[in-house]
Amino acid sequence: MADYAPVAGCMIIEPWGMAVWERIRDTFDAMITADGVKNMYFPLFIPESYLEKEADLLEGFLPELAWIEEPDTEDVQEKIAVRPTSESVIAPYMADKIRSYRDLPFRINQWANVVRWEVTDTTPFMRTREFLWQEGHTAERDNEEAQEEAMRRLEQYRELIENTLAISVMKGRKPEHDKFPGAEITTTVESLMPDGRSIQNGTSHNLGTNFSKAYGITYMDENEEERYAYTTSWGITTRLIGGLIMAHGDDQGLVLPPTVAPKQVVIVPIWRDDTEESVLGYANEVADELEDAGFRVELDDREHRGPGYKFNEWELKGVPIRIEIGPNEVEDGVLTGVHRDTGETEQFERDEVVDHVQQDLDAMQDRLLEQQKQFQDENVREAESADEAKEIITEHGGYVTMPWCGNEGCEAEIKDDVAADIVMVPLKPPVVESPCSICGADGEEIAYFARNY
Amino acid sequence: MADYAPVAGCMIIEPWGMAVWERIRDTFDAMITADGVKNMYFPLFIPESYLEKEADLLEGFLPELAWIEEPDTEDVQEKIAVRPTSESVIAPYMADKIRSYRDLPFRINQWANVVRWEVTDTTPFMRTREFLWQEGHTAERDNEEAQEEAMRRLEQYRELIENTLAISVMKGRKPEHDKFPGAEITTTVESLMPDGRSIQNGTSHNLGTNFSKAYGITYMDENEEERYAYTTSWGITTRLIGGLIMAHGDDQGLVLPPTVAPKQVVIVPIWRDDTEESVLGYANEVADELEDAGFRVELDDREHRGPGYKFNEWELKGVPIRIEIGPNEVEDGVLTGVHRDTGETEQFERDEVVDHVQQDLDAMQDRLLEQQKQFQDENVREAESADEAKEIITEHGGYVTMPWCGNEGCEAEIKDDVAADIVMVPLKPPVVESPCSICGADGEEIAYFARNY
Repeated sequence: MADYAPVAGCMIIEPWGMAVWERIRDTFDAMITADGVKNMYFPLFIPESYLEKEADLLEGFLPELAWIEEPDTEDVQEKIAVRPTSESVIAPYMADKIRSYRDLPFRINQWANVVRWEVTDTTPFMRTREFLWQEGHTAERDNEEAQEEAMRRLEQYRELIENTLAISVMKGRKPEHDKFPGAEITTTVESLMPDGRSIQNGTSHNLGTNFSKAYGITYMDENEEERYAYTTSWGITTRLIGGLIMAHGDDQGLVLPPTVAPKQVVIVPIWRDDTEESVLGYANEVADELEDAGFRVELDDREHRGPGYKFNEWELKGVPIRIEIGPNEVEDGVLTGVHRDTGETEQFERDEVVDHVQQDLDAMQDRLLEQQKQFQDENVREAESADEAKEIITEHGGYVTMPWCGNEGCEAEIKDDVAADIVMVPLKPPVVESPCSICGADGEEIAYFARNY
Repeated sequence: MADYAPVAGCMIIEPWGMAVWERIRDTFDAMITADGVKNMYFPLFIPESYLEKEADLLEGFLPELAWIEEPDTEDVQEKIAVRPTSESVIAPYMADKIRSYRDLPFRINQWANVVRWEVTDTTPFMRTREFLWQEGHTAERDNEEAQEEAMRRLEQYRELIENTLAISVMKGRKPEHDKFPGAEITTTVESLMPDGRSIQNGTSHNLGTNFSKAYGITYMDENEEERYAYTTSWGITTRLIGGLIMAHGDDQGLVLPPTVAPKQVVIVPIWRDDTEESVLGYANEVADELEDAGFRVELDDREHRGPGYKFNEWELKGVPIRIEIGPNEVEDGVLTGVHRDTGETEQFERDEVVDHVQQDLDAMQDRLLEQQKQFQDENVREAESADEAKEIITEHGGYVTMPWCGNEGCEAEIKDDVAADIVMVPLKPPVVESPCSICGADGEEIAYFARNY
């Protein structure tokens, strides 16, 4: 899926991984453009003075910025950073384009590369200095509409990740001290990986008027009064592929959900000289029929590789269904199918191949989601004290929920010992009747502690 | 289509321009992936030592490189450039992956942003410091296959640009002194713009073994002998949109060929209070019917804008067909159509709308290509002396062809006086019987002089 790049911490996305990313992109792009979001492209380079306008944003990203060396050009007189995110060029663009309430909501998006330099422990897809992402930016009339917008995108992320990647998610808010720089509310979709750690799959931010005030995004309302717009931003990245690999993979390699698999079916014909014509002819017909029905099919008729080699290779790549065709299958008018996730083998009638493959793919898509969802549901545990929380994290991993006072210091109590953070609190601020399980002060939130990526 | 960005020489691609680029991308992507080209993504950052390996490449791009300021990270110990093109990271990747003749041809592509800093006279789409492009990279067994590959992509560029953008092209080679750094042969597709200047729409390079030798791309042939692969690279950029704007635009704004227009039909209903229901109902039905038939349709039912304002706005944006619907159209069961390119107005039966619009769009697509092709064909003129060439360039613009000795000094004779370069020579080296029209030495090539972008 990916390879290491010459510059440390960067990655080369290989064809199989890129095909997955393009499928994620096209699926989500269709969802947001149907909602009237327009794609644009903003520059890679951001002048320092633009970054400085929103103090939290600059402070939050400063340690991670890559700067361009003295551009030495007459027409550029200040420092230039490589974008870590694009609020600071998109907000001024909005300020320029938005005039009246009729221009709202104003909804744009870009698919782009971004750079966050000061990253340690880089791993392809999970944490890289450059990654690909989608960043949506919108402006609304008031806080209520901005919050609705942020929630709409969070829900679309859930839909994308569950339906396409077959990964169940929990929606939540990030605690105050872990919000996106400049955000009023940062929401997240979190998923549990098989190793018991949580992964943040995407975030959606209600930025309130913080960016509007910093960059002057105002509009005339129906009464000709000038008001600040409320803005949002929301993003998913190539990290989704990292989660996908972990969520479903096994000892034989990847297991790709049919919806996102670059190839859904691989046909491996097995022949000798005397059966070559009949087996390959039969295999080609099956491949054509499946392709005509809209499936993504690979016919692996390489001559210099044996069936065992091919089986391994396509298992490693996670293709959902393998169809084996030898002389027996041809003679009996049947096909032998193997399911990548369960290893289960079955024979079915050649004539029913389209319906059969469709049913198998649908069942596998459901099965993968269901398994991961069940695992996730089983691994949310309540704790009544810091010690119990640490014990659960150490023994089981997963999520531990506890009443929490909202103080970052109490998080540190757990974090320093067992490396678990508060990855989220419930989307809607809960009514907390118990005191903070760590310090005993009034409980403000229900904290979800987990080790995370 | 585009706006200026905060950093000089960069651009913001606005929704209308982005939609055009996405259409170009999807069209070309389908063409190459059908040929087995695989998409990948390579890093934005390239270490200096990788750039240095191919001397011509480094020399050619050195003045244009943007460098990252002292990354100040333990794991990065050398200078890092922002990619101007990716041969220097893709060639080592190929060297790593290609083992045997069975791995060839090896064909990959990426859609990405690139940066070329030392650019003057920047103009959105035409010449910007950052632009979007597609760069294809392939490895073949021998020079013949590499040359075929380079020609295959050049032909696909012709097909894309003529069929999608309705811009006729001439295929040619760049003269020796204007080849891509490190290329054996650089081929180009050139088009004449209405102002008499030529635009380079895309280039396809046969890189011979220059990159294979610099980066060690070798393979074992059938006889277990190690051989250098032959490589190619080929690219088109967002500059295509610049050519599109110029090729067909007029005093009222853009004229977009139907194939690439984000909206092909705009419906403008014209109503008063007493006719609102009937006009809007009729307009909505027409819009739905056209959308169901697969056309890209905008129904402009904004209440706070009058028809005149709307007409202007959609003309400016270049939408191919405007359909006007007022009470008379509703009463007579007809529609009034206006063609963007000719301004021609016509009435046709409401019931025939799908067939009628299809015919109009097809006719417009053909007409736009035909007009530009005719203009281009009429503006290729032979000259017999440098003076005649200068006179033609000054008076008519367009292309001037002359026998040429191949010496860059003779090009300068024309260039210094009338700012026309040799934009191409014929694809196949011609048999030239006349001497160089400039210096009188033996003629080697037929030079196509033109002012260019």
